[in-house]
Amino acid sequence: MSLEPGKTRIGFIGLGIMGSSMARHVRSAGFELGVFARRPEAAQPLLQLGARAFESPRALAAASDVVVTIVGFPSDVESLYLGDGGLIEAARPGSYLVDMTTSSPSLARRIASTARSRGVFALDAPVTGGDAGAREARLSIMVGGETAAFEALRPLLRVLGTTLVRQGEAGAGQHAKLANQIAVACTMLGVSEALGYAKRAGLEPESVLKSISQGAAKSFALEHLAPKMLAGDFAPGFFVKHLVKDLGLALAEANDLGFDAPGLRLVLERYRTLMDLGYSEAGTQVLFQLYR
Amino acid sequence: MSLEPGKTRIGFIGLGIMGSSMARHVRSAGFELGVFARRPEAAQPLLQLGARAFESPRALAAASDVVVTIVGFPSDVESLYLGDGGLIEAARPGSYLVDMTTSSPSLARRIASTARSRGVFALDAPVTGGDAGAREARLSIMVGGETAAFEALRPLLRVLGTTLVRQGEAGAGQHAKLANQIAVACTMLGVSEALGYAKRAGLEPESVLKSISQGAAKSFALEHLAPKMLAGDFAPGFFVKHLVKDLGLALAEANDLGFDAPGLRLVLERYRTLMDLGYSEAGTQVLFQLYR
Repeated sequence: MSLEPGKTRIGFIGLGIMGSSMARHVRSAGFELGVFARRPEAAQPLLQLGARAFESPRALAAASDVVVTIVGFPSDVESLYLGDGGLIEAARPGSYLVDMTTSSPSLARRIASTARSRGVFALDAPVTGGDAGAREARLSIMVGGETAAFEALRPLLRVLGTTLVRQGEAGAGQHAKLANQIAVACTMLGVSEALGYAKRAGLEPESVLKSISQGAAKSFALEHLAPKMLAGDFAPGFFVKHLVKDLGLALAEANDLGFDAPGLRLVLERYRTLMDLGYSEAGTQVLFQLYR
Repeated sequence: MSLEPGKTRIGFIGLGIMGSSMARHVRSAGFELGVFARRPEAAQPLLQLGARAFESPRALAAASDVVVTIVGFPSDVESLYLGDGGLIEAARPGSYLVDMTTSSPSLARRIASTARSRGVFALDAPVTGGDAGAREARLSIMVGGETAAFEALRPLLRVLGTTLVRQGEAGAGQHAKLANQIAVACTMLGVSEALGYAKRAGLEPESVLKSISQGAAKSFALEHLAPKMLAGDFAPGFFVKHLVKDLGLALAEANDLGFDAPGLRLVLERYRTLMDLGYSEAGTQVLFQLYR
């Protein structure tokens, strides 16, 4: 099958902050768009753009050439794909399922092989770039699965992102995303401790930022999140609860692989402390709170 | 005193990778330049530009309006400034001493107060930007000490760097630099673990870099040092032994301040392991070796 705007029917499940922007781009590119939303009001703006609402994931899958999902947790992914009346059961042979949730590499492998046994192609394709990346269609998409399926889906993926890389077989997209989260979290740890130290030493952390933000310490976190830390702005760009989920997945995989990751262990423990303190719905920059 | 190229006599001690570039800029800006070098050959290129060599720090200080130092360890700084025949003893009243070594904040305070009691102005002014920043005169200079002294030295400092920020009283420049090193080291930890994890999971780490280098994980380390890690290029841009010195200083200060810094503790322990393994003269990106 080759994807064609105007002909190919794309189903979309998961109209959160990321998903609603992404679904809009799919529709704007001219694809037929079907959606399933647990909260019907989430679908409303898309229906006004010509999308069609379905009453269940099963009904959506039966009427789609490709189903894209971006939901919360691996448990959501598992029941959506593998549960009774799930996507794999309902998908038409020859169709594609693309999970863009950050989820478990081993679950992604299980989904791909179950799908394959029914003639369905499943890819894991988590993203980085955040809400802004989704809104501006410049996500980085990390894909695991068969090369032919990745190539077939390019016309769809390039509507959503600017960096499309196949990382390997099923699960490899998830592994790449977890590697990303390890780097993100340890960098956040360094930025939080650096600013906390500076404050404790009696410096003006804003002045320290001015001195250090463009050198060897330079990072996305230092540039974009450190100012929020200092302003006490902990509104979520990315939720603590989701980072804890991702780091927990990474640590479980690392343990399975016999890979010792003390930085990952430490930062996961710090973020779990934040969960215990009631910060699960805060943005990840709230880590600075532990250093005030 | 106001600094004037052609009139003001600048003394320079510490003609290593950073210092030799910096001294060259001082001379090129038209200042009278005197140097002291333990290894006379290090001074040779500067003498050809019209610098004058002195046989001891004491002789240099006696003949200078400003002495700039950038040496290795706090123990070097301490003996150079406070030892018998040291800079403070030899400096002319009203002259300036500027230590650009990354060193101890408390030592910087001790130097400043001792200097002040003899009518000499001492500033701590460590830098970031590395050898390239020194070569291209775009260092970030973090200054601790009296405002008037900082203002008086601006015409000299702006010959060496593009970002000049007074961080506070004596020692504050060092504190800011240590904050920088905390962020640098934890970011390096995250990059090393992320790439190590990706490799262990069977991915091509180069492909992972392509996917993650421009998003939320973006950092100087990911952009400039991760490719060296993957190429097995551990040539020093910045020595492990110097980072261990800096992180040790930061941890000692953190302990004095009652500031709990588990990320700093962990990354210092990792770099000490590398020292034990014989990597003290390698570049800091050698941290990746612990994850291969």
